Amino acid sequence: MTCNLRFLMAASVAAACLAGTAQADELRDKALEIFKPVPSTVPAVRGNPITAEKITLGKALFFDPRMSASGVFSCNSCHNLATGGDDNLETSIGHGWQKGPRNAPTALNAVFNEAQFWDGRAEDLKAQAKGPVQAGVEMANTPTNVVATLNSMPQYVDWFKAAFPEESEPVTFDNFAKAIEAFEATLITPAPFDSYLNGDDAALSPAQKTGLDLFIDKGCASCHSGINVGGNGYYPFGLVQKPGADVLPEGDKGRFAVTATADDSYVFRAAPLRNVAVTAPYFHSGKVWDLKEAVTIMGEAQLGEELNEQEVVAIVAFLGSLTGKVPEVTYPVLPPETATTPRPTGEVITK
Amino acid sequence: MTCNLRFLMAASVAAACLAGTAQADELRDKALEIFKPVPSTVPAVRGNPITAEKITLGKALFFDPRMSASGVFSCNSCHNLATGGDDNLETSIGHGWQKGPRNAPTALNAVFNEAQFWDGRAEDLKAQAKGPVQAGVEMANTPTNVVATLNSMPQYVDWFKAAFPEESEPVTFDNFAKAIEAFEATLITPAPFDSYLNGDDAALSPAQKTGLDLFIDKGCASCHSGINVGGNGYYPFGLVQKPGADVLPEGDKGRFAVTATADDSYVFRAAPLRNVAVTAPYFHSGKVWDLKEAVTIMGEAQLGEELNEQEVVAIVAFLGSLTGKVPEVTYPVLPPETATTPRPTGEVITK
Repeated sequence: MTCNLRFLMAASVAAACLAGTAQADELRDKALEIFKPVPSTVPAVRGNPITAEKITLGKALFFDPRMSASGVFSCNSCHNLATGGDDNLETSIGHGWQKGPRNAPTALNAVFNEAQFWDGRAEDLKAQAKGPVQAGVEMANTPTNVVATLNSMPQYVDWFKAAFPEESEPVTFDNFAKAIEAFEATLITPAPFDSYLNGDDAALSPAQKTGLDLFIDKGCASCHSGINVGGNGYYPFGLVQKPGADVLPEGDKGRFAVTATADDSYVFRAAPLRNVAVTAPYFHSGKVWDLKEAVTIMGEAQLGEELNEQEVVAIVAFLGSLTGKVPEVTYPVLPPETATTPRPTGEVITK
Repeated sequence: MTCNLRFLMAASVAAACLAGTAQADELRDKALEIFKPVPSTVPAVRGNPITAEKITLGKALFFDPRMSASGVFSCNSCHNLATGGDDNLETSIGHGWQKGPRNAPTALNAVFNEAQFWDGRAEDLKAQAKGPVQAGVEMANTPTNVVATLNSMPQYVDWFKAAFPEESEPVTFDNFAKAIEAFEATLITPAPFDSYLNGDDAALSPAQKTGLDLFIDKGCASCHSGINVGGNGYYPFGLVQKPGADVLPEGDKGRFAVTATADDSYVFRAAPLRNVAVTAPYFHSGKVWDLKEAVTIMGEAQLGEELNEQEVVAIVAFLGSLTGKVPEVTYPVLPPETATTPRPTGEVITK
């Protein structure tokens, strides 16, 4: 009898385990049709072979506040690798204490986005890197001044030569952007969700698995898919029901500004959701600080679905599994200025 | 004959070496009466035993922009470890794009200063650390808001518990400052000058040795002495001859504001000169960008001495030997905000 009971118990545990595995595999199979784990190596990027020298240079440039007119802001100011690759502000504060028009997206895993910026107006990170440095409300600099600044510091000139060994005049604004792209391509954050996709059942909690299932079944994954769980397609914000003007301000028509096509009014790139739990506030307007609230709004606006509390909690739990390990970055020691380095200016020029 | 010639040559080389050594030793002996090399270990600080846990916490706090009201500025913004421990601005730009009143001094080796700030108004780094975070033109925060911010993030609370294990309520503004002091105590930059003081003749070039000799003989070392080649005494700026109002603005009376003693008008702490070559611009006003010009001004203002071009060049060469190796710092990954984290505000409150 004892023996039988033991046998029965063992059998039932084994059955439960098998069922668990089978169920998990089914969910994983479903997930793998939609998502992809991050790769274990730095991805190739269009027209910019990535080398160790480019990464070294790009890291220095990424952290160098002298790339801004004022000497106050670096790429890392708004895409802070210490705080999820963004600045945790509604919209960034830049040159002259001006507020940027949209929430700063994370630089982490940005290499996997189909295009950059909320409206996809930059086709890749090297195109993107040229934007903020010139934007009057951000770094307020000019390509000419960036190149003059770099040329004034011999260590930078050497680094550019090492990064672009085939070019006779390697210190250019294009190469500045390419080096930053190379560094950013290393900013990949493997997360529990990747472990799960790669076969580790225990990487997600039961609540996270429920959330993943809901994320797929409710339709979130229709737009938020691929390696970055988003970042690879354009959709109207308010597909079913427009959110309030606080979240979707009337003045910012999104991709319309890029394509000038009426259909693209209030169209934005689906936000990539890796590390979303550590990159509040949310949406291009940065008006929502609570991830639960953001999920609720998305349910209503995009799916016409009133998600209940339990569903929202489960989806948020799943989104937490997208918080990954930030690569270890040694803080750079930058080349010192010289007598010919252009002086910083905090002056605000209004055009 | 060949043999004799060889012998003579060897003897003369040996004699030259001995002479060189003797001369160097004499200069080194003279230097060692005035200066001290940086220690090989983190120094003890008053009332704040330094532990690995405090350093870890302090590093996070040092790099955390959420310690400012706006979420834009961290300690590292103005004391940037990538650019000589300062910001290379005339005076720092802070909250609301306001300009600070004085040039930001380097955080590197600051632990060796007798007191902190240009006027020595903070007796040590833990007192100093409380200043900028509250200054309206810098980080514009309040102790209450700093503590609320820290308490809202469980990882910070754990780090404070680990750093101050004997305290029941470790998350305090005092401990915030102590942790930052602990981290800053690790920011020591051994330089060629230290190698020289420690016995390596080859660490300084002949020009640098000439400069060191001049630095002592002309009287620079009367004020710029000790481990930090300065930072340990107060002197009137313009002891012999007041520099122009651009360099020494009338409105800033220096230590007078601390002691309210007439004798302390235009008295400042002698600037610590480690890493001076990479921390332009110079003086409390930050008005001079060229180190040669700064040395020339100091000769006139403090020594009543018109240094000639050759002397200035030699002294600047010596000052270059004070540029040290910045310790390797892994950029921190900071705790994420939670629902209870106070929201950043860029609003400028004028009192």
